[in-house]
Order: sequence, then structure tokens, then C-alpha cells
Amino acid sequence: MNLSFDTTTLREGYLSGKFTVSDIIREVLARIEAGDSKIWICVDTADRLLAQAKEIEEKDPNSLPLYGIPFAVKDNIDVAKLPTTAACPDYRYFADEDATVVAQLRAAGAIPIGKTNLDQFATGLVGVRSPYGIPGNAFDPQYIPGGSSSGSAVSVALGQVSFSLGTDTAGSGRVPACFNNLVGLKPSRGLLSSTGLVPACKSLDCISIFALNAFDAQAALRVAASYDPSDAYSRPNPLSLESPRRAYRDGMTFGVPSPEQLQFFGDENYLNLYLQSIARLEALGFKKQVIDFSPFLAAARLLYEGPWVAERYWAIQDLIKDAPEALHPVTRAIIEKGIDGTAVDAFDATYKLQAFRQETLSLWESVDFLATPTAGTHYTIEQLEADPIQLNSNLGYYTNFMNLLDLSSVAVPTGFTPKKMPFGITLIAPAFHDEKLLSIAHKLQLASELRMGATEHQRFEPVLPAQWDSAPIAVCGAHMSGLPLNHQLTELGATFQRSTSTSPRYRLYALPGTNPPKPGMVRDESNGAAIELELWNLPQSQWAAFISQIPSPLGIGNIELSDGSFVKGFLCEQWATSQAEEVSAHRSWREYLRARS
Amino acid sequence: MNLSFDTTTLREGYLSGKFTVSDIIREVLARIEAGDSKIWICVDTADRLLAQAKEIEEKDPNSLPLYGIPFAVKDNIDVAKLPTTAACPDYRYFADEDATVVAQLRAAGAIPIGKTNLDQFATGLVGVRSPYGIPGNAFDPQYIPGGSSSGSAVSVALGQVSFSLGTDTAGSGRVPACFNNLVGLKPSRGLLSSTGLVPACKSLDCISIFALNAFDAQAALRVAASYDPSDAYSRPNPLSLESPRRAYRDGMTFGVPSPEQLQFFGDENYLNLYLQSIARLEALGFKKQVIDFSPFLAAARLLYEGPWVAERYWAIQDLIKDAPEALHPVTRAIIEKGIDGTAVDAFDATYKLQAFRQETLSLWESVDFLATPTAGTHYTIEQLEADPIQLNSNLGYYTNFMNLLDLSSVAVPTGFTPKKMPFGITLIAPAFHDEKLLSIAHKLQLASELRMGATEHQRFEPVLPAQWDSAPIAVCGAHMSGLPLNHQLTELGATFQRSTSTSPRYRLYALPGTNPPKPGMVRDESNGAAIELELWNLPQSQWAAFISQIPSPLGIGNIELSDGSFVKGFLCEQWATSQAEEVSAHRSWREYLRARS
Repeated sequence: MNLSFDTTTLREGYLSGKFTVSDIIREVLARIEAGDSKIWICVDTADRLLAQAKEIEEKDPNSLPLYGIPFAVKDNIDVAKLPTTAACPDYRYFADEDATVVAQLRAAGAIPIGKTNLDQFATGLVGVRSPYGIPGNAFDPQYIPGGSSSGSAVSVALGQVSFSLGTDTAGSGRVPACFNNLVGLKPSRGLLSSTGLVPACKSLDCISIFALNAFDAQAALRVAASYDPSDAYSRPNPLSLESPRRAYRDGMTFGVPSPEQLQFFGDENYLNLYLQSIARLEALGFKKQVIDFSPFLAAARLLYEGPWVAERYWAIQDLIKDAPEALHPVTRAIIEKGIDGTAVDAFDATYKLQAFRQETLSLWESVDFLATPTAGTHYTIEQLEADPIQLNSNLGYYTNFMNLLDLSSVAVPTGFTPKKMPFGITLIAPAFHDEKLLSIAHKLQLASELRMGATEHQRFEPVLPAQWDSAPIAVCGAHMSGLPLNHQLTELGATFQRSTSTSPRYRLYALPGTNPPKPGMVRDESNGAAIELELWNLPQSQWAAFISQIPSPLGIGNIELSDGSFVKGFLCEQWATSQAEEVSAHRSWREYLRARS
Repeated sequence: MNLSFDTTTLREGYLSGKFTVSDIIREVLARIEAGDSKIWICVDTADRLLAQAKEIEEKDPNSLPLYGIPFAVKDNIDVAKLPTTAACPDYRYFADEDATVVAQLRAAGAIPIGKTNLDQFATGLVGVRSPYGIPGNAFDPQYIPGGSSSGSAVSVALGQVSFSLGTDTAGSGRVPACFNNLVGLKPSRGLLSSTGLVPACKSLDCISIFALNAFDAQAALRVAASYDPSDAYSRPNPLSLESPRRAYRDGMTFGVPSPEQLQFFGDENYLNLYLQSIARLEALGFKKQVIDFSPFLAAARLLYEGPWVAERYWAIQDLIKDAPEALHPVTRAIIEKGIDGTAVDAFDATYKLQAFRQETLSLWESVDFLATPTAGTHYTIEQLEADPIQLNSNLGYYTNFMNLLDLSSVAVPTGFTPKKMPFGITLIAPAFHDEKLLSIAHKLQLASELRMGATEHQRFEPVLPAQWDSAPIAVCGAHMSGLPLNHQLTELGATFQRSTSTSPRYRLYALPGTNPPKPGMVRDESNGAAIELELWNLPQSQWAAFISQIPSPLGIGNIELSDGSFVKGFLCEQWATSQAEEVSAHRSWREYLRARS
């Protein structure tokens, strides 16, 4: 079976009866069996997995958003009845319950296949710091897989599962995505519950998502994200209250670090691929703006130089006191330093961080997102092992600041080196802009025409509409594109949806004495015409502001479209048309203006 | 001159020409001169103050929101050309510039008179820890004034200035308000800039406002609050994005701690006054609900038992290392402990705090605000000095948690003990609900009929409308109070404004086949009637949701009211009235329904 495991292909197959969930589970197990054993720390038993498959098969595929979708779970996240090790055998415990996120995915029809290898205690960006061995990079096992979510990334890239959960405190959900040609979503802090997660830096940890394409990441995100009062760091998603800047729009502005602030550690291939990626964003209509990246870099340096390593110490303090030899020697050397700092140091560092955070805030006034390399270079295992701490640190150049500065980000594949090793960029925005970034990632993936992961498949489904917090409004006059009041829409963040026309039951009048000239549209059941309309998506939060600008005799009512559906839009009070010239014959205000001029 | 210095009285006098700004400045100086010298650490010179008065007099009183309003500034906040001491002579420096908040108040026409005494480095809730002496309580100098903003509170209570700036990290802006019969606003963290403030706990400090009444506090707040990118902890006010719960409504629910969670340290008078205050809130129509206060109390204990005292150490580390004897002995004993904690301790405490914060979040689903005593009792100076640390700590029982949990709060006077000493309660809500709390404080002040501060005046101006983020909508049919669709308004947080009617230029029709029965209103310039309307304030954020529920042939247009003004409201497309019964003769949909039934 040479089947892509992207969620759309599986869903289509399930709906058409081409295969069953049990078939897919058997195929998953066969692929894992045939692959590198170091990817997985633990795979659930075939019996239990097939029993879950049977249960799902009794349901309607349309009733479950992730019906029969197999996924992998990084082994610092609990899956009920399986051990959690965090890649430290002495830390191992059996989980009684699923982590909240796993439980939500399972309830949506997804099947957790097992637990994947990682840099011990999620400390590292390399994927080589595990007593369970080094999962080979999906493209060339001489190269590091990236970490700490090494197994989660490689399992998806090899097509063993549809998506996977990783974690991302300092880059662990993005660096492995870059090195294995995957989408790696680091959700906003607190968007996914951390209940059932082994903490690394408890105040910064995020469960992350690896997927073959942006649509799959979004599908998993929508199921996995929810406010969880039992997790102290969970945050309600304020999406519905958000400004229009949150939504995807064509022509958004993106920031790039100034050239001297980029760092490729001598890797010309990665530099070239980054420049190509930026050029592609520009070709897609996004506007580039060079920004000062220095506060981001300064915040990144704080992560390992500052007190946050005390959080890592806190998380395993019993183990490190009682059995320090249980730790990987590199991990131990890093975490042991956490005991040193004072509370005064800790506050001093948080003040510095707060200043960097404030400094970056103003940036988002002028740019919609940033685009940086995900990593500056890609090391072989041999290179890495010669200087394990410094080279690991190099890999965090573009990632370490993200959670400290409370940002959302998506790593997206954009190209390959001459040696056929993958490269990708990271899209960055303030917290809770996750879906906006996924929309952009989707556009980029479509344009780049790469295969997915290390599979031979290429399938990029349309993303769900990014305008979920907008509602359509029909305009028939001075608000249409290019006409004098169109700015009232665009200034409020409205985006053009499409041109259409009313049902043939409306009359259009040129309202006398209006400036700029405005039409009035009135429904007439028996003697109407089909009038040209434009549909715009207006953010929910802006309707009051928009409507406040509408003068008498105009208002917002329900307009019947040519397809018989109704949409909110401009209508006119009929009394005001008695002295007005009827222009219905033009079928369009724009045409009337043209004819008149 | 026996003039109240509340802002309304001053504004009226300025506008009517009854007195000039120079007159008021001279009166301020005379009152200060005649009063307790320990209130002020430094008063600006008469020459400079009168020069400022002259400058202001050249302007139109209507052009400056705080035209000629004298205010005091706690001596840990910079005023240009005056020394800042934080009540530590060895710390003293001359400020080149106003603190941002002072500069904003000055630009609005307010005049900073001088710098007031405080508990050294704003450490304390008592007002007795200063080498500049103890400002006498405005009602009885044997009692503590409360602190740390002792001088700022007493100066306002005695009518020396209209309002004052204090600071409030752990209660320093509320406890002295309680003990001097003032409104004490502790604004949301980051709402007022901290640029130019000597830090106490940098991550928690708030500049606060003392005023004679809630309206004056609001007037100062509206000028003083602004986002300041140069202050790392400044936050943009997200008001405009907020849910309807932010706005004031009659009949809101308030939480009170369960009886065993209240603590009055044996003070029966304060207990009785608290119970009376709660009864008054209920008499005003607010609904009481007993809540579990334990996470608030647990968070409060963290403040001095946890690592935050390291912030106080950080703030004066050079001084405490070089010249520890420069500190007040009690202050030094407290702050020196800040050196002890480790970064691991600090993170451990922040995890605990985060859990308490999360635990309290769900509370705000069911209550709109909390009402607690501001302090559990009031000590004499003699009592306090017998056990200075423990009794100080007692005073923080209801205040210490506030900034840790990111809440807004207002201390409001509500009564007097048999010995004529003041008592007050604190209203509490999540961050950025400051103005909602001030609206409630205003209602309470009106109902309590107390004098203002220790003055003989009583003047409580109406608060500005609390619904500044709403817009009015006129309803003429099933959305009116008591009719079947009224819930669509109330569920979206709309509040009833008033009943009115249209200009006599509308016709009302009973639309056939609608369920529930709905009218359609259409403008008719020549043959109309005045139709009954209700005006509701609908939060801006909810207009899209509300409009989405309006079916054809109804819509939102511009309705002319009986006074000739226009307001958004329900209109009907005229085609739909051709088969409808005209009911304009009833002048009201409600009357029509009544007549029909």
C-alpha cells in the first residue's frame, strides 16, 4: 500500500469505503515495523489499537473530525495505559489517563499509536540526547533529526502516522520540522492544555503539532485547542474579540531581520534557500519590510543564560538530587546549573525580558508577521557530537525567544539544498494568531510544490476559511472596490470576497443630493432586476463602527442573492426613492456611473 | 474660604469666574501651611506654582479636562525640578522630568503641588515608617493614617488638594483611603505608566489615585491612563475589545467571602460596618453571592512569604549593600530577606500563584465584582508600634493578592464607627474593569450620603456614562422590554437606556406570518405618526451578532427621534407592508398587542 496519510486522503478513503480504520492501523504498524526502531520508545499493542479502530468504525465518518486518523505522541506527554519516560528510563511511570490534548484528539476519532523518542526531558534541539538512541533524519540518517521532538517529527515525515504531538519550549517543535520537511506549529502559549505533560520550563512549555501540511496542522489544532482550567497556564482563546489584524488578508506586510542580524553559521545553502523563500512570499503579494531583530535575539539569549534553566531544575529536582547519574550527561550538565541563581537574579531577568517584550510590541503595528529561517544550518550527527552544547545553541538562534515573547509561530518547508536536505522558514506573529499563520503557511506550501515530509506525495488541501470571525456584507454602491467609500470597509479590515448579483427582485435608484453619489436599492417582488453586488467579509468586531457611518435613508437589511440565499447588505428606505432617478436598467451602480461620465 | 476642592466645584467656580487658578493655588498653600507639616516632604515654591497658575489662566477652562486642579504626588514619583526621596534622605535625587503620569495630568491643566510622605520605599500599609514623621490621620492623629501612601491620602482628606497620586503594590493605595474616608483607585496593572516611579516590586507596582469621590478619581484616571511603550509593564487598554460584562449594569451580582473567611481581628465595629455596606449594595439592587475566598487569601500570603520581596531588594540593592543604616530599621528588616531566595524558589512560587490565578478566573463567570472590607481593623499608632510587622501584615489581609492576581479595585468609603473613624469596602474585578468599579463606587457613595474625606462637604457628581463602548439602538417591536425577543438584546449585554418615540413621520405595520409577531416600521414624510421606541445600549462588539439574527424584511436603518436626532434602529422594507395591517394608530407595538389580546 502506497497511500499518503495526510488527513484528506484518509478521510476520502474512509468515506468512499476504499479502506477501513482497521486497514489503516495495520498499515501504520507495518510501516513502523519496517522502519527505524529508534523513532519510537513505545508502540501500543496491535490488539488494543485494532479494538479502537473497531470502535471508531461503528461511527459515521462524518461525525468525527479526525475519524480514524493515526498520530504519534512525544514521550513526555501522557497516553493512558502507556508508560511516560521523557527519554529517561529511571523517570518512567505508567499514565492512568490521557493528557487533555490526547483525550480530545482521541474523542475526535484520532488514534494515538505510541510514544516517540526525544531529547531527554525535552532539553535540546538536536535529537541525539536520548538513551533510546538517535532516530535517523527522514532524509539522511547521517544528519541529526532535530529535537527535542525527534521521533514525533521523523514518524510523520516517513508517513508512519498522519500527524504527531511534540512539545516546544525553545524550538523543539520547529527545528525538527525544518530538518524533516514538515509543518511544525508552535501554538500560542496556553492554547493547548499542558495537563499530562512532563514540564520542562513550566511557564513556557507548549504542546506542538507536526503535520504533512498546514491544513492537517489546523485540523489537529482545532480539536486540540481548548481552555483547561485545570492547567494553571491555560488561557481562553480571545480570538472572537480580536482586531481585524488577526485575520488573513492578501498583501499583508511581513518583517525580515536586517542582513547583519541573520546567522547561517557559514551555511550558504540555507542562506540561499532563505532568500528564495522571502522572494516567494513577495511573489505571493506579501510586502517585505526589514525590521530590527535585536530585541528578539536578546530575549533568545536570556533563555539559557538567564534563570529559566531553574525551571528545568525544578521539574526534575527529586531525580537530579537522588540519582543524578540517571540523566544523559549533556542534559545533566545543562540542568544542574539551574540550582545556582537567586530570586533576585530571576526577577532581574524577567525585567529585562519584559523590556524586550514591550520593545517588540510596537513592531506589530507595522508588520503582520515575521519570516525568519527556522534554523540557520543543519548539522550531521558527527559534527554535532564534536561540540554538542554550542552547536545545539546555534540551532536556537531563531527559536529560543518565541515563548519568552509570547508569540505564535509555524515552521513551514520551503525548499531543499543541493544535497536534497530540507529547509524551511518560520512565520511569527503575536499570541493567538495561530490560524492566520497557518493560512500563510498553506499559501506558501501550495506555491512551493514540494512533496510532503519524506513521502512521495504532494497534497495541500485548501485551508478552512481564515475569516471565521467575519461575516459577509453586500454592497451595491459607493462602498464597492474603487469607489469613494470603499476605504470605510478596508480601514475596518474587511476583505473582498466576490462579485455577485441580487435575485431579479430589486430596483436601484440614484439618490439625489448625496455626496459622494450613492444609490438606494429597494426590493420589488414583481418588477425588479438583478443588481451587481460585491460581498465583503467584515470582522464581527467592526460592524458597529461600520454601521455608525451609514446615513439616512440607507440601512442594513437582508438581500436575496442570485442563488436564492440571503445576506446582510445595503438597502434604502423607500420614501427616499420617490424623487430619485431609477437606474435599475444599468444593473450596476458602477455601470451607471460609467455611462453617466 | 471654605470651599470644597472636589473637581466639579472648582470647575464651576472657574467657569463662572468666582475665583481664578491663582486664588486656588494661594488657598492650597494656606491650607498646607496651616496643617500638619508631616504630610508633605516637599512643597513646590509659591512663585513656581503661581507661574503655572498664570499659564493655565490664559487658556479656556473648557479646553482642559483638569483645568486648575491641584494635586499631590507621593514622593516616590518624579515631579520635574523637585527631589524624589521615597522617604529615604540618603536615596534623594532631583528629578529632571515629570513621571509620565504627572506630565499627562499637568498637560491636562492639573497642578502638582508637591511631594507627600510615605512608608519608606513604599514598604508598609501603616504610614509610620518614615524618617519624615507620621502624618496624622485626618480624623484622629492617634490613629495611623495608613500607608504606604500616607501623605497622599491625608492631604486629600483634609481638602488641601483635589486628588493625589499614590502607589499601590500590596494595598498602599487602598488602606489609607479606608482610614481617611476617600475613594482609592488601584488601577489595573499597566494601565498607568510607571515611568518615573521608584520601583518597590517592579512587576506589581501601580500608580494609584486618591480622590474625594468616584467621579474625581475617574476624571484623573481618564487623563492619567495611557499606554507607554517606554514602561516595560505598560499594557494597552483592551477595553474596546471587551465583553459586555465589563460595562456597568443594574442588578449585577457581587461576591462576598464566606463568613469564616472574613477577618476583623476582633473589631466588631468594622464587622458591623461591613455587613451594613453589603446590605446597602443589596438595597441598591445588586445580588449577593457567597464565594470561596481561599485562593485570594492563599495568593495574598505568597506576597511576603514568597519571592516577591526579592523585587524590593533588587530595587534598592546598591543602597542596602553600601549603606544599610540609611534605611528605616523595620523596612530594612523586611527587605533584607529578599536576598535569601533562589531562582528555583521564585519559579516555584510563580507556579503556585499561577494556579491560584487560574482558580479565581472561573469565579468571574458568575459574579461581576467582589466586595470585601478594605481593611479588617484600624490601629492606633501606639497599638501598631507594639507589634509593627504583624499588625502591618494584618492590614494586608484583603489587599495583598490584588496585583498578584491581576485585578482592578476601588476602595470606597461606606461608614463611620461609633468613634467617628471611617470605614470602607473594596470593590474588585478583573483587570481593566476600573471604570465599571468606579460606577459602582459612585452609586454607593450617593447612597451612603457621607461627607467627603474629613471635609464638611458632600458632593457626588454623576459619573460619566459607563457605556462608553456601546452604541444605542432603537427597537420598536418584539425586542422591547418584556416582549419575546428582548432576550436577544440582554443576552448580548445590551442595557436599557430609555423609552422615547419617533418623530411623527413613521408608519407601523403588523407583518403577516411572523412568529413571534413582529411589526415593520416605515418612514412616511407626509402621513406618519410618532411611534413608541425603546433605546438600548448595545456593546459595539455585539452588533454583528445581533444583526445576524434579524430576518428579512427587517433591517437596521436611521430612525428620527421626537427630538429630531437620528439613531440606528429597526426599519422594514416597504414591499413587505403591502399585505400588512397598518397599526400606526396605536402609536406603539405594545399597545397594539394589548388591544388585540
